[in-house]
Amino acid sequence: MRLILVGFGTVGRGVAESLLASEPELLVAGAEPRVVAVVDPVVGSVRHEGGLDLGTLLRLADTGKSLATYPGAETVAGLKEVLEVAGADILVELTPTDLHTGEPGLGHVRAALKAGLHVVTTNKGPITLAYHELRDTAHKAGLQLRFEGTVLSGTPVLNLYEAGLVGAGIREIRGVVNGTCNFILTEMEGGTSYAKALSKAQHLGYAEADPSGDVEGRDAAAKVLILANSILDANLKLEDVNCAGISELTAEDIQTACMAGKTWRLIARISQGENGWEAKVGPEEVNRADPEGSLTGPENLLIFDTEALGEVTITGPGAGRRATGHAVIADLLAVHRNVS
Amino acid sequence: MRLILVGFGTVGRGVAESLLASEPELLVAGAEPRVVAVVDPVVGSVRHEGGLDLGTLLRLADTGKSLATYPGAETVAGLKEVLEVAGADILVELTPTDLHTGEPGLGHVRAALKAGLHVVTTNKGPITLAYHELRDTAHKAGLQLRFEGTVLSGTPVLNLYEAGLVGAGIREIRGVVNGTCNFILTEMEGGTSYAKALSKAQHLGYAEADPSGDVEGRDAAAKVLILANSILDANLKLEDVNCAGISELTAEDIQTACMAGKTWRLIARISQGENGWEAKVGPEEVNRADPEGSLTGPENLLIFDTEALGEVTITGPGAGRRATGHAVIADLLAVHRNVS
Repeated sequence: MRLILVGFGTVGRGVAESLLASEPELLVAGAEPRVVAVVDPVVGSVRHEGGLDLGTLLRLADTGKSLATYPGAETVAGLKEVLEVAGADILVELTPTDLHTGEPGLGHVRAALKAGLHVVTTNKGPITLAYHELRDTAHKAGLQLRFEGTVLSGTPVLNLYEAGLVGAGIREIRGVVNGTCNFILTEMEGGTSYAKALSKAQHLGYAEADPSGDVEGRDAAAKVLILANSILDANLKLEDVNCAGISELTAEDIQTACMAGKTWRLIARISQGENGWEAKVGPEEVNRADPEGSLTGPENLLIFDTEALGEVTITGPGAGRRATGHAVIADLLAVHRNVS
Repeated sequence: MRLILVGFGTVGRGVAESLLASEPELLVAGAEPRVVAVVDPVVGSVRHEGGLDLGTLLRLADTGKSLATYPGAETVAGLKEVLEVAGADILVELTPTDLHTGEPGLGHVRAALKAGLHVVTTNKGPITLAYHELRDTAHKAGLQLRFEGTVLSGTPVLNLYEAGLVGAGIREIRGVVNGTCNFILTEMEGGTSYAKALSKAQHLGYAEADPSGDVEGRDAAAKVLILANSILDANLKLEDVNCAGISELTAEDIQTACMAGKTWRLIARISQGENGWEAKVGPEEVNRADPEGSLTGPENLLIFDTEALGEVTITGPGAGRRATGHAVIADLLAVHRNVS
């Protein structure tokens, strides 16, 4: 498995760390991933025929040095050149999500599939905006397109469904898929105002400087769209997802719910409507004793309501450098199993 | 996929129902399982070259008729004959668990592997007593041996690990893996005595006439052994599992825990000891707010504590005709993916 990593920021370095940490288990599984090129407009783009040492890459990037200083590696202009010369099997696309254009990830994924590479990505942009096109291109070319890291980071969701829930008859999927909102709501239950809770989330690194993607529900909307389109073969666009955030919730709303043994959560939900699967995101009052209600802080959960099993619930981290890195490990192992 | 079902009691019929219900999704996945023989010493043993109709099999068995009356099918003497003549690919072994001898399942699994068939089973006996032998035999012959249904019925656990948690670095696995005990403990929290709670569990079909396998923890011990040996490559025997049940817990124990905001659960746990992985089963006081503490009734859960993700928790049914049937569907799909 010869990999190209595109994007060597927080997620890219998390993937490199995960590859190092998981090496023994990957070897047992018969997989020997080797990073033959890294492409990043900020930290530099290099390739090495025999494979790049991940520890060296991490040391350079973490100390602010250009990857171009990697001893013995060739610098490269960009992904186009690497796809032509690196002899790679898999593109690992780790650039930041843009839900308006999908770029630069969308272009990277298209170019890789065109060049005959499998694709593993953690980038919600291309999968949200062009899933059907990319799936069909990959399918026709006999290539794998995997994106576990786009939903609940490395907590198995897409891989859980594929390995354990196909055939169980999904009736509904719902859950808490945005850790920033859940953290803010948990803080507000303790009497903190929305503004102060948001500020604390930003201080702790849970929320970005512009938090609107999280608190207005658009991040959750992208995730629920990805679940609906890939698991349930729906054909939804982002504007089809009925989406509300948590920024309108007041301290009084929180108090009133609390006195009734309830609590507010930002719930993402896919259910059968009159015209097939419908997806929505919005704040809902849930019982404290329910799985959604007892989930606090930045954790995420997803509930698959099925004919065969009733409700199956998975809970785990929704973000984090190493957690997102692990999603790529799981997808690489799946590619290895499926093509070997 | 030409299947032989061995065992057509509750579990066997649950598998037949699941095959019927999941047919559309199996077809989409490219899998066309066909039952070419059923072997059961009570309801009869038949085969049909072109495949047996599952609805007809269910009607016969559910109305107390012998499968030998199936129109146009050949009756057969037993598994040995069927393995020779049926041209099957997969043995689905669904006879009841015997943790002392493993039989009759162990003999069935050995015979099937010897005859070159993949094996899918829900029977804990063979996997508890002879996992390493069977795994090695299957491996050498290039055959699949799958047993999702032995732990938490159809709630994905072994398939979850394989698809999503390999490489995450397991630190500990713990959980509630026996629904009968959890039901009894939940009842006792409401003030019911152990004897009355057990009697209610038997009345509802959660506990057997001889409940000792459940309440003394042996059922949980077998499950934790299967997890340790198959997921963590441990080499444990049943007598290595430190095992205590719930029958010694008194109403006073329950009350005392309750006043401290705690509750008793029968916890199965695999952790690192001085000599590698250790497994144990026993009642533990847990916080009500913990996932184990908030689990009530016959539900099960398993927590994977990992380096990469922290804790990942899956909750779902631990038993049931259709739930166990679904485990076989998931394993058949995995065989299909892995061998096609």
